[in-house]
Amino acid sequence: MLMEKLRTHHTRDIEPEEMADKSVTLAGWVHEVRDLGGICFVVLRDREGMAQVTLVKKKVDSDFFNKAKKLMRESVISVTGTVKPEEKAPNGYEVLPDDITVLNESCTPLPLDTTGKVEAEMDTCLDSRYVDLRKPRTSAIFKIRHEVLKAVRDNFTREGFIETTTPKVVATATEGGTSLFPITYFDREAFLNQSPQLFKQILMSGGLEKVFEIGPIFRAEEHDTRRHLNEATSIDMESSFSDHFDIMETLENTIAHAYSQVKENASQQLEYLGIDLEVPETPFKRLTYSEAIDIINQYGKEELEWGDDLSTLSEHTLGEHVYNETGAHHYFIIDWPTEIKPFYAMPYEDNPEISKTFDMMHTRLELSSGAQRIHYYDMLKNRIENQGLDPDSFDFYLDAFRYGMPPHAGWGLGCERLLMTMLGLENIREVVLFPRDRRRLSP
Amino acid sequence: MLMEKLRTHHTRDIEPEEMADKSVTLAGWVHEVRDLGGICFVVLRDREGMAQVTLVKKKVDSDFFNKAKKLMRESVISVTGTVKPEEKAPNGYEVLPDDITVLNESCTPLPLDTTGKVEAEMDTCLDSRYVDLRKPRTSAIFKIRHEVLKAVRDNFTREGFIETTTPKVVATATEGGTSLFPITYFDREAFLNQSPQLFKQILMSGGLEKVFEIGPIFRAEEHDTRRHLNEATSIDMESSFSDHFDIMETLENTIAHAYSQVKENASQQLEYLGIDLEVPETPFKRLTYSEAIDIINQYGKEELEWGDDLSTLSEHTLGEHVYNETGAHHYFIIDWPTEIKPFYAMPYEDNPEISKTFDMMHTRLELSSGAQRIHYYDMLKNRIENQGLDPDSFDFYLDAFRYGMPPHAGWGLGCERLLMTMLGLENIREVVLFPRDRRRLSP
Repeated sequence: MLMEKLRTHHTRDIEPEEMADKSVTLAGWVHEVRDLGGICFVVLRDREGMAQVTLVKKKVDSDFFNKAKKLMRESVISVTGTVKPEEKAPNGYEVLPDDITVLNESCTPLPLDTTGKVEAEMDTCLDSRYVDLRKPRTSAIFKIRHEVLKAVRDNFTREGFIETTTPKVVATATEGGTSLFPITYFDREAFLNQSPQLFKQILMSGGLEKVFEIGPIFRAEEHDTRRHLNEATSIDMESSFSDHFDIMETLENTIAHAYSQVKENASQQLEYLGIDLEVPETPFKRLTYSEAIDIINQYGKEELEWGDDLSTLSEHTLGEHVYNETGAHHYFIIDWPTEIKPFYAMPYEDNPEISKTFDMMHTRLELSSGAQRIHYYDMLKNRIENQGLDPDSFDFYLDAFRYGMPPHAGWGLGCERLLMTMLGLENIREVVLFPRDRRRLSP
Repeated sequence: MLMEKLRTHHTRDIEPEEMADKSVTLAGWVHEVRDLGGICFVVLRDREGMAQVTLVKKKVDSDFFNKAKKLMRESVISVTGTVKPEEKAPNGYEVLPDDITVLNESCTPLPLDTTGKVEAEMDTCLDSRYVDLRKPRTSAIFKIRHEVLKAVRDNFTREGFIETTTPKVVATATEGGTSLFPITYFDREAFLNQSPQLFKQILMSGGLEKVFEIGPIFRAEEHDTRRHLNEATSIDMESSFSDHFDIMETLENTIAHAYSQVKENASQQLEYLGIDLEVPETPFKRLTYSEAIDIINQYGKEELEWGDDLSTLSEHTLGEHVYNETGAHHYFIIDWPTEIKPFYAMPYEDNPEISKTFDMMHTRLELSSGAQRIHYYDMLKNRIENQGLDPDSFDFYLDAFRYGMPPHAGWGLGCERLLMTMLGLENIREVVLFPRDRRRLSP
């Protein structure tokens, strides 16, 4: 094919000793041009790394030398030449070029510096992702995102889960919330779905038993923080004949597998990010909600009562306390008050004030929440009514509970939050290619 | 955990001889109750298959016998009992129960018959997916969908592609089309994205080189056919330093791998569907657009001129002709007139009336289209203008072509069309859990 002429190898594929004096063709971007008078170095960058292309003035045609020296940074080139081992060069070799083809010239000045020497504002990076991604540090994040998604799916498949796709355009709010984006769906009003919750439960009635979905969720919340997005990727699962304790194990395994796969398959990328990744040990610590409240009241700066939800401040107090006690970043808070959890959470039979629920926390923030769900039609309908919602608008969901709904449990895990805590990043926008927030709708 | 008591094995996990006289606990749905007077058979169904639970009146407590006999079909039960090899029973064994627990009783009558004896209308099935999915034939489709998605991703990973996530809420139409669903995004107007096209191209400028995405696309077309949906799953890829011929190979490999993985991992499901799956041979036949026109004019019922798009009728003529000649269902039509392809398709340098484009066809319908893309800013801007679109609204996209866009190519493949042609299904709604069309917005 035509394109084979543009590249025979990636920069990382070249073994300096084995391939010495062989002819290769590399393709990529002009990362840097260093003209030292008698010698000119062109650093070519591709997805896998860098290669030094060396031109010695006395040894090459002067037109060729002058053309190389004037290459615009970030232009796209293809270089054919001979491999020469050179310890001081990236990857231990340089290429002595016979030919350099400019495939597409770059304009100047660049919207931001790709060498990472000059820091750019977050907004500049996001506006110019097409250049920002050329920084090894930025592309490393998305290579790791790929590894995380792959590891999560592999773990689900290993545990017998089936991948499902549920609709993003829906007629009813999942939890009756107001934080929905309205759509004009032909002549009707519809909404963007904020969670696959109701659908994955319906699939339990359908007998698929174990399902997962990794897909977009949409929340019209007016947050403007570093840990909220209006469009995010949710990792969701639901499992029949399971209680909350069963699925907490799946969750721990998922997290641990993601960490270990990233460590194994993205070591170079972790290096770019300066991260020495530690795989969390399982099982994660389990704290009850009541214990959490006690810890917060003893060590924190605010006084909570049983039944209160946890503020961000309280979560930090708790996270620090658990980390100091155990050295672990991940832990569960279980047995939450039924009243502050969604209508589908199952209360304990012997103490209905408490529910079979959990949040999975990282020292820095909440990553996941889950529960055994109510599988009884009457109980569920009552809970919907008690929360001031109209059961009629949940007909399509409630019907699934009338004809043999098994006991089941499930959780949702924020993909971006998992990534930002794994990589120690401050802003959730760093782990999304084209983030969507209150102000940002483009690119 | 609590739930371990509800199930020790799936029905398929039991080895009749090895586990004879052992105690097991099964959980699932009451598929059928056959009361023969002195003996009562309860057929329990779980995700993996069926098991026969046998009660002999003389040998069990009469209350227990009467309770079993009155079990409602499709109730959820857990059965503990002893395994007894029995050749005539499903999977070669029966269970002699010590205990049957009803976990959730089903109402009656059921919205449709789960045994498959009574056929239901498509609309009834879709309205009651929670029962429809209990038919082995229906759940088989979604187990196969899982295998297809897994195989497609595995093939991408094997070929060095990175999974990406691009936004579904966007400010601009991908191809300036009118078939967009408008969203109220806070105080602005936005749209649901109809294709990741522009974003995956931006990622090529970003140097990710090989990316794929499997995600929802939304088209507000007023079609009401058996092969269109308003929300569908698109399999998209884009590859740098590649031309259209390179990515046609990736596409063939993807299709062949999906077929072979389904054949290997879902043989039971193929059996439920009565399908003897044949893995397509690669490479697929390549026809030029001009050759296609000649075939249609020679064998078809309509006369086309060079430059015309192919009608559904013409596609059928062509598909039948190719199948009769080669015995193959899959083939490519390459080298389309530039004018009838989108603005981003690359014309041939030596003959700009023809473009570096292809459609990948199945005998029945088009599955995929792809192209080498224009990577030059000026040429692309001209093409946008020539198609009557406003280049200003494409700024976020065009900018990515100014600072070093490599040559690249990509395709989109309809996940649902791949499935319906693989499984010989007539209606695209059969391969989607909760389809969205002009009339259907729920469940």
